[in-house]
Formats: sequence, C-alpha cells, structure tokens
Amino acid sequence: MERLNGQLKIGAIVFPQMDQMDFTGPFEVLSRLPDSKFHVLWKRRDPVTDVHGLIITPDTSFAESPQLDVLVVPGGQGQELLMKDNDVLQFIQEQARGARYVFSVCTGALLCGAAGLLRGVKATTHWSAFHLLGYFGAIPRNRRVVADGQHVSSSGVTAGIDGALLIASFLRGERVAKQIQLAMEYAPEPPFNSGTPTTASPEIVEAARSAMQEITSRRHATARRVAFEMGFSRF
Amino acid sequence: MERLNGQLKIGAIVFPQMDQMDFTGPFEVLSRLPDSKFHVLWKRRDPVTDVHGLIITPDTSFAESPQLDVLVVPGGQGQELLMKDNDVLQFIQEQARGARYVFSVCTGALLCGAAGLLRGVKATTHWSAFHLLGYFGAIPRNRRVVADGQHVSSSGVTAGIDGALLIASFLRGERVAKQIQLAMEYAPEPPFNSGTPTTASPEIVEAARSAMQEITSRRHATARRVAFEMGFSRF
Repeated sequence: MERLNGQLKIGAIVFPQMDQMDFTGPFEVLSRLPDSKFHVLWKRRDPVTDVHGLIITPDTSFAESPQLDVLVVPGGQGQELLMKDNDVLQFIQEQARGARYVFSVCTGALLCGAAGLLRGVKATTHWSAFHLLGYFGAIPRNRRVVADGQHVSSSGVTAGIDGALLIASFLRGERVAKQIQLAMEYAPEPPFNSGTPTTASPEIVEAARSAMQEITSRRHATARRVAFEMGFSRF
Repeated sequence: MERLNGQLKIGAIVFPQMDQMDFTGPFEVLSRLPDSKFHVLWKRRDPVTDVHGLIITPDTSFAESPQLDVLVVPGGQGQELLMKDNDVLQFIQEQARGARYVFSVCTGALLCGAAGLLRGVKATTHWSAFHLLGYFGAIPRNRRVVADGQHVSSSGVTAGIDGALLIASFLRGERVAKQIQLAMEYAPEPPFNSGTPTTASPEIVEAARSAMQEITSRRHATARRVAFEMGFSRF
C-alpha cells in the first residue's frame, strides 16, 4: 500500500441541495487521519442547505483552496444543478491535475464525468444513475467501491464511508484505517436487507424508482448533452 | 409495528465538539420520513463546530422547539462538557415527558443518563464508555441497537444509522424504512473487519483505547459524581 508523508490536504465540495451524507460519511473518516487538514469547500464561505434541510458552512472558498491530495465530490439532487457550472467543473479539473485521489460519492460521479475525468475510467455511482455512466465515457462497474488509478468512486450515499476507509488505508496504511473504523464503531447491522435493487423487494424498488423519476429523467437528458459535447457518437 | 398518523416532529440536539456523524446518520434516515419535520436544535441558533471541525447551524432554539415525537441525543467528546449543563439536561427531561422515543447515539447515552432517563432501562453506548452505563442506573446491553420502551440507544457513531432505520420502521412501518434504506443504498461493505473491540486486533484496540484515555477518565469521574447524586450507593 502506498503511503504519503507530510501533512495531507483533503477537501470536499459542499453545495445547495446536496445529500449531506455523501459528504459527512467521508468527512467522518478522513477528518480523523493523523497529520491532515480537512477543507470544506464551496465557491464562497456562505452556508449551503442540503436537500433535506441541513445547514452546513464551508470553511474554505474555491479561491482559497490549496492543491489538495484528496478531493471528495459528493452528489444528491443538487448535483444536477451544477452540471453546467463552470466554476465547479473547472475547480474539479484543476484540483484533479495535482490530486492523488479524486473520490466521487453517489451521483458526484456525474459531476466528475461532466468535468471529463471519467473517460476510460472504471467507476460506479448511485444505482438510480448507474445506466448514465457510459455517457461520460466511464466503464461502469457495479460494485460498492471502485478504485481505478487516481479515481475512486462509491455507489450511493452511505457507500462513501466504505470508500473513504479504503482511501484512508491508501494514504496512511491499513493500521490507521482500522483504528478509525474501530473509533467509529463501524460494524454495521442494517435491520433490513433492502439496501440495493437486487436485495430489496420489487415493490420497494418500484416505489423508489418512481419517487426519483423526475430527477433521473433530468440527469439522463444532461448526460446525453454531455456525451454529445464530448463527441461520444454512440449516443 | 406501531405507526403514528399526522406530521411527525423529530429533532436532534447539536452541540460544540459533538461527533457530527452521531447526528448526521440519524438525520439522513429520519429527515426522509414522509409527512415529518426535522428540527436541528441547540440553545441558540448559532453555528456549532463538531470535534473535527464541521460547522453545523441549528434551525430551532430550545425555546422555539415544539414537543417532539422523537428526540435524538448524539454524543462525541463534547457530550462530557454538557453533563452538568442544566439547560441541556432540562430540555432532554422535558422533551422526554411527551416524546414517543428518545434515541441516544454513542455517548449521547451518558447525557440521557445524567438527565435521569436510564434508571432501570436497557441501553448501550460507544464501546469505550460501555462500562459507565451502570453508574446511571441503566441495564447495559452489549448490542448495536437496544430498544426498551421509550428509549432507543445505539452503540458508537455509525450505529446511529441502524438505530434510526429501526425507529423509522416503528414510526411509519417497515415498508417506508426499507425504501429509505434503498434510497441511501445502505448495504454496507466495510473494507476491514475492525469495527468492534472483539473483531479488531488487540494492538488496534489498545491504540484506540490509549487515544481515548483522557476523555474516558473524565467520563468515568463524571459518571461517579452522577451516581452519587442519584443515590446509587453501590458505586
């Protein structure tokens, strides 16, 4: 396993209508890394409100951000509003040039795709958006966490915890990652077996798909536009 | 399973030096309940900073809070600073009189204990504080989630997700809870098996205990004081 010496600079983008746990899961893991500094990033230091109403305040503006070792890109409904946002896409592109890892959580993968980071890269995302990965040139991998060179991606929401523990081990070794896991008492026992479309009952999958239909359609239209602009002619 | 009709009022206390995931885990689950309102509570509406630096802004002061159906009490290092805080202990006591559930996450159980809610109640907490439950009159149960009448408790940090899914099923039925689980893609795959003191290696447990030694000693001294004040003579 690779280890970095010296203080690690880690950052996560937060934004309006994000899904807070896409960010707070990785924050919980990576903010515990020894000799590291975690930056909570947005265009400005103004508070943002997540899709269910949680108010989170960034501590570093894009302009103030140092080159990061790890950039975390969360998702959630608000991701769709940023798919044409040049401030955000350029920030991701610029950080990606020097970062050791770019870590997309949930539909944060679509933002990384719009920034051009997923061409020829194995990646995953939230199950409801998985069929869109190809539009960005990604090689879809239906797994909870996918690591392909610089890019690490996790599937939906809570998968950011698993991905962040893997990245913690890449950065500081397994021993440190395991100690963080113990401190977080991360030995999950979901009371139901309904966490993926293959284990949930068909009626529950249908209800969840139906509740997400509008945002999924909008994401699909955006993915087609990006594919066209990137010159992926098969779409 | 019991179900409640009408809008649910759910709230969580946030406070300085808390562990943010003790709160953001349950928030992610319970804020998705249909026909519900989630209140992020503190003495005032001023932002609080969690133990690793995340800035969270409450949306409701204690004085503004309605009677809640569910009160979530998180933990983390900052919990110890509140063990003599009458504003906080009284708020918990008053809400507990009318709430359907009080849900302690991690060392939030010690706060509930100081508020007198755990006398004769089966409960759990973070593994590093588990030996302190008896001082508050609780009946310690070494499980990830414990439900005993009004009181639901979870073990450390990430266990709040599991406990919140159970409470979601109590409130709105298993079908709703399972749909929330699917939307959060909660099918965890921890990359290591190091989430509890029984599965982690002895050297990792020792390192984690050692890192928490100071806060554990302070919690122990406080637990003795509370036991004395409550008249539990066996301590």
